[in-house]
Amino acid sequence: MVQYARPLARLVGEFEKLPGIGPKSAQRLAFYVLRLSEEEGQALADAIVEVKRRIGYCRVCFNFTDQEVCDICRDTRRDAGLLCVVADPRDLVAMEKTGEFKGLYHVLGGVLAPMEGIGPDQLKIRELLARLRENDMREVVIATNPNVEGDATAMYLATHLKNLGVRVTRIAHGVPVGGDLDYADQATLIQALDGRREM
Amino acid sequence: MVQYARPLARLVGEFEKLPGIGPKSAQRLAFYVLRLSEEEGQALADAIVEVKRRIGYCRVCFNFTDQEVCDICRDTRRDAGLLCVVADPRDLVAMEKTGEFKGLYHVLGGVLAPMEGIGPDQLKIRELLARLRENDMREVVIATNPNVEGDATAMYLATHLKNLGVRVTRIAHGVPVGGDLDYADQATLIQALDGRREM
Repeated sequence: MVQYARPLARLVGEFEKLPGIGPKSAQRLAFYVLRLSEEEGQALADAIVEVKRRIGYCRVCFNFTDQEVCDICRDTRRDAGLLCVVADPRDLVAMEKTGEFKGLYHVLGGVLAPMEGIGPDQLKIRELLARLRENDMREVVIATNPNVEGDATAMYLATHLKNLGVRVTRIAHGVPVGGDLDYADQATLIQALDGRREM
Repeated sequence: MVQYARPLARLVGEFEKLPGIGPKSAQRLAFYVLRLSEEEGQALADAIVEVKRRIGYCRVCFNFTDQEVCDICRDTRRDAGLLCVVADPRDLVAMEKTGEFKGLYHVLGGVLAPMEGIGPDQLKIRELLARLRENDMREVVIATNPNVEGDATAMYLATHLKNLGVRVTRIAHGVPVGGDLDYADQATLIQALDGRREM
């Protein structure tokens, strides 16, 4: 019923497809793009096309990269004996932002979800095992999310990795820093209690 | 510190410039674009470039359009004696969504804001007055927002439009439908009382 001019309607439609962007936000973004200069609009469009053309997966860790092997895997200052396993490239970014982890990564590309047809063969688990056989690793830190699929994936990995004789750990779960006991759910509190440490 | 591959960093940066998109949303959008097919990514990029190239202002009402005169202005089924004045094309869209307004529009392109250097000459007020002189209008409905600038703009317009002998009204302000008296602010309640009608 509402009459956007056709190119505008098309852009609103394209924005609406993006995650977390509803009709209202899509409209706001489209009107914003209309106010950009020609060059700014082109820069945004180019960045989208460019990322599709130039970004692929790292041959070693399966993180996104524009090279064959990503910057992290090629960084010789990093601890090559320590490997953090994450489900998704976004989780890798979250870990990197801490600035605390100095080892390497392995991106699974998801978590086990049998209901959705995602088994071990759909993830980069075979590649992980091969990588551990070929490289001498001291410890594998599993950093999947603390939910059903993340837990199941962690359990599955732990079983198979221990067979290779490598130490397997998982990141701690508990009350988040700055969080409030009062507002923490029971499952989190149980995890927090379970993981308590000497002071 | 965080190492996105360069094309990815660039796209995240471009998304971060958009209104209401913080670093986290920008990252989510960029990763989403990475998962699109080549064609889908191209479609999004094209829509952005296209909108910049093809959309301009309607010569009559200053709404966005891809023609010289927009669909609404050219629609002969609409009431040409009734004109709704809005600040922004988005406000026009909001009015159109009601499906209730059958007249024409005039988009001011902003509101009076002397502190930011926006006076009558920066808005399409001269064009509005000319339009009213040239066309026989029955009524002008002012639909600027109920805030300081919107009120000042409405007052300014009312004064000048009445000189032309046209009837000038303003949309009602009050407690929103589905709203709660208890949560309505005082200014709104005062407006609601002020605008009370016979039942």
